[in-house]
Amino acid sequence: MIVVMQQHCNDEAIEHVMTYLKNHGLSGHLSQGVERTVIGVLGAVGPSGTRTTAGGINPAIGEALESLPYVEQVVIVTKPYKLASREFHPENTIVEIPTPCVAEGVVRIGETSVVIMAGPCTVESEKQLLTTAEAVRKEGAVILRGGAFKPSTSPYGFRGMGEEGLKLLSKARKEFGMAIITEVMTPSDVELVCEYADILQIGTRNMQNYMLLDEVGRTDKPVVLKRGMSATIEEWLLAAEYVLSQGNPNVILCERGIRTFEKMTRNTMDISAIPVIKRVSHLPIIADPSQGTGHRDLVSAMSLASVAAGVDGLLIEVHPNPDEALKDGAQSLTPELFQKLMPQLQSVSTAIGRTIVAS
Amino acid sequence: MIVVMQQHCNDEAIEHVMTYLKNHGLSGHLSQGVERTVIGVLGAVGPSGTRTTAGGINPAIGEALESLPYVEQVVIVTKPYKLASREFHPENTIVEIPTPCVAEGVVRIGETSVVIMAGPCTVESEKQLLTTAEAVRKEGAVILRGGAFKPSTSPYGFRGMGEEGLKLLSKARKEFGMAIITEVMTPSDVELVCEYADILQIGTRNMQNYMLLDEVGRTDKPVVLKRGMSATIEEWLLAAEYVLSQGNPNVILCERGIRTFEKMTRNTMDISAIPVIKRVSHLPIIADPSQGTGHRDLVSAMSLASVAAGVDGLLIEVHPNPDEALKDGAQSLTPELFQKLMPQLQSVSTAIGRTIVAS
Amino acid sequence: MIVVMQQHCNDEAIEHVMTYLKNHGLSGHLSQGVERTVIGVLGAVGPSGTRTTAGGINPAIGEALESLPYVEQVVIVTKPYKLASREFHPENTIVEIPTPCVAEGVVRIGETSVVIMAGPCTVESEKQLLTTAEAVRKEGAVILRGGAFKPSTSPYGFRGMGEEGLKLLSKARKEFGMAIITEVMTPSDVELVCEYADILQIGTRNMQNYMLLDEVGRTDKPVVLKRGMSATIEEWLLAAEYVLSQGNPNVILCERGIRTFEKMTRNTMDISAIPVIKRVSHLPIIADPSQGTGHRDLVSAMSLASVAAGVDGLLIEVHPNPDEALKDGAQSLTPELFQKLMPQLQSVSTAIGRTIVAS
Amino acid sequence: MIVVMQQHCNDEAIEHVMTYLKNHGLSGHLSQGVERTVIGVLGAVGPSGTRTTAGGINPAIGEALESLPYVEQVVIVTKPYKLASREFHPENTIVEIPTPCVAEGVVRIGETSVVIMAGPCTVESEKQLLTTAEAVRKEGAVILRGGAFKPSTSPYGFRGMGEEGLKLLSKARKEFGMAIITEVMTPSDVELVCEYADILQIGTRNMQNYMLLDEVGRTDKPVVLKRGMSATIEEWLLAAEYVLSQGNPNVILCERGIRTFEKMTRNTMDISAIPVIKRVSHLPIIADPSQGTGHRDLVSAMSLASVAAGVDGLLIEVHPNPDEALKDGAQSLTPELFQKLMPQLQSVSTAIGRTIVAS
Repeated sequence: MIVVMQQHCNDEAIEHVMTYLKNHGLSGHLSQGVERTVIGVLGAVGPSGTRTTAGGINPAIGEALESLPYVEQVVIVTKPYKLASREFHPENTIVEIPTPCVAEGVVRIGETSVVIMAGPCTVESEKQLLTTAEAVRKEGAVILRGGAFKPSTSPYGFRGMGEEGLKLLSKARKEFGMAIITEVMTPSDVELVCEYADILQIGTRNMQNYMLLDEVGRTDKPVVLKRGMSATIEEWLLAAEYVLSQGNPNVILCERGIRTFEKMTRNTMDISAIPVIKRVSHLPIIADPSQGTGHRDLVSAMSLASVAAGVDGLLIEVHPNPDEALKDGAQSLTPELFQKLMPQLQSVSTAIGRTIVAS
Repeated sequence: MIVVMQQHCNDEAIEHVMTYLKNHGLSGHLSQGVERTVIGVLGAVGPSGTRTTAGGINPAIGEALESLPYVEQVVIVTKPYKLASREFHPENTIVEIPTPCVAEGVVRIGETSVVIMAGPCTVESEKQLLTTAEAVRKEGAVILRGGAFKPSTSPYGFRGMGEEGLKLLSKARKEFGMAIITEVMTPSDVELVCEYADILQIGTRNMQNYMLLDEVGRTDKPVVLKRGMSATIEEWLLAAEYVLSQGNPNVILCERGIRTFEKMTRNTMDISAIPVIKRVSHLPIIADPSQGTGHRDLVSAMSLASVAAGVDGLLIEVHPNPDEALKDGAQSLTPELFQKLMPQLQSVSTAIGRTIVAS
Repeated sequence: MIVVMQQHCNDEAIEHVMTYLKNHGLSGHLSQGVERTVIGVLGAVGPSGTRTTAGGINPAIGEALESLPYVEQVVIVTKPYKLASREFHPENTIVEIPTPCVAEGVVRIGETSVVIMAGPCTVESEKQLLTTAEAVRKEGAVILRGGAFKPSTSPYGFRGMGEEGLKLLSKARKEFGMAIITEVMTPSDVELVCEYADILQIGTRNMQNYMLLDEVGRTDKPVVLKRGMSATIEEWLLAAEYVLSQGNPNVILCERGIRTFEKMTRNTMDISAIPVIKRVSHLPIIADPSQGTGHRDLVSAMSLASVAAGVDGLLIEVHPNPDEALKDGAQSLTPELFQKLMPQLQSVSTAIGRTIVAS
Repeated sequence: MIVVMQQHCNDEAIEHVMTYLKNHGLSGHLSQGVERTVIGVLGAVGPSGTRTTAGGINPAIGEALESLPYVEQVVIVTKPYKLASREFHPENTIVEIPTPCVAEGVVRIGETSVVIMAGPCTVESEKQLLTTAEAVRKEGAVILRGGAFKPSTSPYGFRGMGEEGLKLLSKARKEFGMAIITEVMTPSDVELVCEYADILQIGTRNMQNYMLLDEVGRTDKPVVLKRGMSATIEEWLLAAEYVLSQGNPNVILCERGIRTFEKMTRNTMDISAIPVIKRVSHLPIIADPSQGTGHRDLVSAMSLASVAAGVDGLLIEVHPNPDEALKDGAQSLTPELFQKLMPQLQSVSTAIGRTIVAS
């Protein structure tokens, strides 16, 4: 932590800060420039409350310092996340998902190959789900997506089939050997969803639902953590840190578009988040071009762009009859479009030295 | 709902849309302009799933229409919220809070007078809470705020005293006769918090935690619903609709700043949301200038501005010793600053023909 | 400037930075913490190019440092603006506008009293302008606004009457004794507009039109500098710095709303910018609630809020017949609404110890 | 244009709107739904001022209608841009740039092949420019970028070498046969820049500098129009419409990142703008991953992603010694990194059935 003093501050003000630091078990290191004095706060271990368990200085101390007289600015130099950082964990995390339909019986996310997860936005019926599963499985998808519990901006919207939907997913898994990813929305549902799902999905609106993060952190299921629609990457990694700090190391980040002023797309996919995450974190990252764009005719281009940028997987909405979908039909690919996309994904993967997980 | 066809679309495309509507129990009304055809979708009541219980057309139908060939755009003309709208409920909603310290024994939010809620961001200790309660009560605050369950961006931050904090709030209520407002973060805590609180607060990160909204909607406690940090007013009213549609009419909206590019303030208070809400909704609205600005020295100016813009109440953080606060000290007023602010609030209230609730 | 090194950086990396600094005429001051090393860059005056004429270190050096190996972050601690800062100029700047209609013959912006500037968005005809001028003058406005050169998002929109419009403004000034504020859009028009106007207005889209800022900075006319629609306060003050650094000290900042996700208002007025500017700068600040909201029925509430927050003036659109306005009719007050607003503004001004400039 | 009436509006209100339309030479077409009445405004050609020269209804009429009593909303269904739309011009526009270094003597932007434009952010010296030109030419870049007039957020920043820089660019063209792209910032410089440049660049801050757009629209030089840093795609196309409507058809759009809340990148590249533009417009689109990310180590991934998404060209900053660059060194590739990137770009281009323009 660095404390930048205001210009023209007097010795008493500097003394005030130094005493404050001392009273909180910290020590300051003065650098006096021509225009300003800055105080580096050193890492003597203070009393309880001074430092967080991750080793950082308690942010409340920074806030308090910033409101002291003559303090211009407090700069936090330690990253607020630790377990999620590449500094702490230099090797890539590889999340393993048991998946009968692949030769090895397990899919590895975060390795060289790119994993395709596809399926309907929402589980609507046995026929809809199984038809879609069969179609995407045939083209090479190895993980089946489908929402049983659905967030809806309006209380009058469709909120999913609930446990019945989970049972249908389970049936699809048996039939096609695909692993299942589905959303969980509240702590009390975690146990139930774990019975049916191979991967738990935390949706964009729940990225900062801390009790839910704690709860999935106490399971051993892989967790796909979608980026909050207005979250910074730092906030996203802090949400991952919640899960990791409860003991669950299997976090997969998912870029799904952020809110911007642009109205021609539902969200703006932040493709640059892909190489940024690769640099600052060891966690795998996948992308959701369906939610990210909101328009079927943009999904293919953005899938290819995500792969070119280095993504470890894609989450794609496919519906056998999108015009009749109960939710998000406009952004779902038809099985025909999905079939057309898969060889293109393979070509771009090859161009950058990767491959698509083959089933 | 209005369907705008692309320029140069042929008769077959129009027929396609008309048939789609018919198949979904709706009927279309053609208007052919020089350049474009538009189709007004009329309100024949369709089969289950076609219309929401609020009377709107199922949004999934609009989405599906928008992805049909030759459809340019679908315009929803019915407001997606109903119970929260002034059209549905023309009179102001007045929320009554039993409050021993006022003469009448009850505070009314949404009437002529402006209600001041003050107290620490977070309950830290009995001494801290009671000292603050006494100080703000003396200056005219009638509702005491204080967090027992606290959201923290980092898993290593302080997350509140929990039930022990609720007990201290209860003690402060007994001692000073103030009503209590405190946050509830997850559905399973609602029952517990209801035992202690007079008003339930839903924080900005939980504005779209739908299971939590459902749960507080099933209680009879007044609910202060903070605006999501990147939420539009429409999304905020839809969140209110969740609570209202469960049967709880006592929703108070709270503007607490939205995320913008500006870095000199923690958030940007959207003061214009105050007159907008007054126009489109019947619900009371209060403002939180502490969260809204993040800086103690901006709180007074923004409190005055909120009152001038027509707010029904203020939620202000006060701490006896902000430099030692465990959370958000930088945005808390000292009791001295709060004492200075109250007569200014009274003056501005008088200038616009309102008053401050007197205890 | 502070250079924060990455964790685990070796001595060679530190040496690299120190040498880089030395080669650029700067010296570094090491602070070694438990986890990180930070290097304070001290203010030895370097060779040409190292420091800007305002005394800051050349930002290119910071950028270069940030891309060196093992450098985590570079923190600039000197404010990038100087002439616009309150540190450099502690007293409020008061801008004087010669205005025959006030007793003293001059209006002072930045003093205790609040100045009302009103008039049509756009000069449309002699009758429209003079009718409006008479109406707003009668209620106490002392400065007349009206656009002769108008920015239009579409090339097919109305772009103003040009010099003919300036002549009508000049006529209104003669008739009613009001000072004139009007927009200038390009450097080659500055001389012409100066012949007619008392105050030059730089519009939101031109806040970073640097050649235009340079040009108005070379005149001695007061300049109202509107905030860019997505500009931070720092960028806004840097734009002011362009004008100030050319020798023109008479800059008045104007908050006119920023772009946010909210769609119920045209822009979101950042009312908190008013007390922020008062803290960090000595320049006067006014507000434009017409552009700021885009809706006639929000203008009054936001005018009152701006005054309560401490603004030095208001810029309000008034049109005798808004339904027939060639531009922005929806946000213009009728003369009747303006007449109703003025005494309310007076009341709120009085409540905070200020007054409205009286003509 | 569609006028949506408020619920419960009476016949008089509808009559009011119909009369207003008639008075402005337009006619309305009533659709009465169960809840609301909507009025379609038909395209009878009205008197001067009613319709724009592009055929749309004057937006001022829509604004006026929206402020009439009982009008809920006015929906504009005609796109505000025309010349830039694919509806008006279904074939791709192909911009031809005379370029001696390619076999044909001309580069075509908007065809199958992808064009690489590279060079320093800013022209700093003859040696810097020629070294860079040689290096990028060798790897296959056919257009040389380099700023002679540079926008700078601070008045104390480097603003470019001016005409001397243009002369150096001209020299590099002679020596290496590459076409030249360079920025023009103000109308009075257009003539001068045209003497030296093959392509005029309009920077992000000038996207809505309408006089400058008019001026470049009157030349016959190809214009690269960068997206405003907070502009929507519609606003961007309206800016293109300014240039096109002056008679210059050679507009190339350039995505260079938009401002979002993310701080780990300088801007957020909106990669989805690439397929969106391809759908709604016939103009070519290129991408600038240097400005778009601000970080050298993200440039390659984002270049590949842009190509995968369908871009027609790339604008890449390369500097022989980025640590000593006078501007934006942190986002410039070294010649070595550029050399590594080019074959990767070729591979991804091939994977999607395109190629890199070969010199």
